[in-house]
Amino acid sequence: MLFNFFPKDVNFFDLFEKQVEHAVSAAKHFKEVVSKGKINQESLEKMQSIEHQGDDVAHDIMNQLDKSFITPFDREDIHALVKELDDVIDMINTIMSRLVVYRVTGIDKNLVEFSNVIEDSVLALACAVKGMRNKKNSKSVSESCVEVNRLENVGDTMRDAMLGKLFETEKDPIAIIKWKEIYQDAETVLDICEDVAHVVRSILVKHA
Amino acid sequence: MLFNFFPKDVNFFDLFEKQVEHAVSAAKHFKEVVSKGKINQESLEKMQSIEHQGDDVAHDIMNQLDKSFITPFDREDIHALVKELDDVIDMINTIMSRLVVYRVTGIDKNLVEFSNVIEDSVLALACAVKGMRNKKNSKSVSESCVEVNRLENVGDTMRDAMLGKLFETEKDPIAIIKWKEIYQDAETVLDICEDVAHVVRSILVKHA
Amino acid sequence: MLFNFFPKDVNFFDLFEKQVEHAVSAAKHFKEVVSKGKINQESLEKMQSIEHQGDDVAHDIMNQLDKSFITPFDREDIHALVKELDDVIDMINTIMSRLVVYRVTGIDKNLVEFSNVIEDSVLALACAVKGMRNKKNSKSVSESCVEVNRLENVGDTMRDAMLGKLFETEKDPIAIIKWKEIYQDAETVLDICEDVAHVVRSILVKHA
Repeated sequence: MLFNFFPKDVNFFDLFEKQVEHAVSAAKHFKEVVSKGKINQESLEKMQSIEHQGDDVAHDIMNQLDKSFITPFDREDIHALVKELDDVIDMINTIMSRLVVYRVTGIDKNLVEFSNVIEDSVLALACAVKGMRNKKNSKSVSESCVEVNRLENVGDTMRDAMLGKLFETEKDPIAIIKWKEIYQDAETVLDICEDVAHVVRSILVKHA
Repeated sequence: MLFNFFPKDVNFFDLFEKQVEHAVSAAKHFKEVVSKGKINQESLEKMQSIEHQGDDVAHDIMNQLDKSFITPFDREDIHALVKELDDVIDMINTIMSRLVVYRVTGIDKNLVEFSNVIEDSVLALACAVKGMRNKKNSKSVSESCVEVNRLENVGDTMRDAMLGKLFETEKDPIAIIKWKEIYQDAETVLDICEDVAHVVRSILVKHA
Repeated sequence: MLFNFFPKDVNFFDLFEKQVEHAVSAAKHFKEVVSKGKINQESLEKMQSIEHQGDDVAHDIMNQLDKSFITPFDREDIHALVKELDDVIDMINTIMSRLVVYRVTGIDKNLVEFSNVIEDSVLALACAVKGMRNKKNSKSVSESCVEVNRLENVGDTMRDAMLGKLFETEKDPIAIIKWKEIYQDAETVLDICEDVAHVVRSILVKHA
């Protein structure tokens, strides 16, 4: 028999899971595209479709929230969770469309590296979010959040090293403009993942 | 006889109208200046004066909020509405002063195009905000919000096309630095308009 | 005998003071480094250590908040105060690490000028935050907040003048990329200080 974290409200947890799964799809698709080093119309549209599906779930949750008297945890926390998860997907989508708009072509090893860390972080986030259903997962949820924080630090260091090298070796200012923004954007995805983890952890604390 | 949206509180609605009218003035003045392609001290000061007047109304509303027991809708929603409307005006003012600071001269067709969409979006916002006074406007308020969202999508596409062309054709990196930021800022105005519309719509839903 | 601003809760005020003192340390260290015009590993680590200590105090406050039934003022206001103060320190730390990452060397007079204004603003903030303990300081707290706002305006004008000159005289696009961001970041510190002052002032109004 399971001991529940919160008063049972299957819908919300199902919806959170659905939303975080879209974030996972976005991260996986991003990694795939970046590893191939070329973005065609099809892969762009696939990302946009993931983003739209994520939006739909976010709207569903907000609508449920307006209609529900009882929610598994504080409304503000649900709101923050949904918003930050949505921002994760949006930011990945933004990078992808920037790669197209900035006319970036070819494989960039740094970006491949970043896409791996982003995937790891979003996967850890998925563990955390899915674990919230049940109080017995409290320890593993907390560990996943710690992992997300760790990966944000990894990303910080990566970005600084990449930018440092860029300013040291790249002589083409237009390339600097492009890559500086893209590496910073990639790190921003990890920042937002950390924000999600932060919300999850504060929910955990309140319901401990 | 009118059926009111919320408990009557003439002041708040009057103040919202006043604030959104300042946003309209900012958008109109921006369009005018951009269409002429030159900014003199007078036009800069006019924009700053609009911005100050907008600030004053925002402060008035926040003061009223602190003093009122009864408000036409949730305090957080009023707060969000006022803040986002203020951000619309601030962002238009920021672009204007950036044009000066970045030493931009001459007419840029892209920016003229953007200033038209910004004006349309702020006008739709004005309809939405003014319509909130009365429940019978519910449908038209909602349609205005949809229009603001539509224009944000239009702006996204425009910005991406403009940036794509910029990176493809512009060889001067300093021009890229300037225009990249200005086009992105212009699209940000539409993003913030969408945030306002989002607040309006969520107020509508709560009071349906 | 002192007349207290809020129900006595020594802990919170002590913690706010501790946090704002870390902001002061960050501003002072930044000014020192910038005036010398070179950043070594030691000075970088010192800034990071200040930032970590600031983080620790912020976490302490949030933990206290979760455990306390009675707080000296609204939870959201404490939350906002702590967050914004944390952002001040983070932003100063960010600029410092960007100077390293962007391979900036030598003394830049503009940045020295900015570091002075930042120090002044954070010192005014410290007066405001420390004064909150006691209602009799109400006037001086309010004056400190006004000073922070004034310095933000000073910073705006400084940044615009610096950027204007940069775009007029600097021919190296990579230098423009670097300094444009650094001057804008420096001004952002003053913006965040203003946000802190805004929170302090709104607390004051509620408890007048």
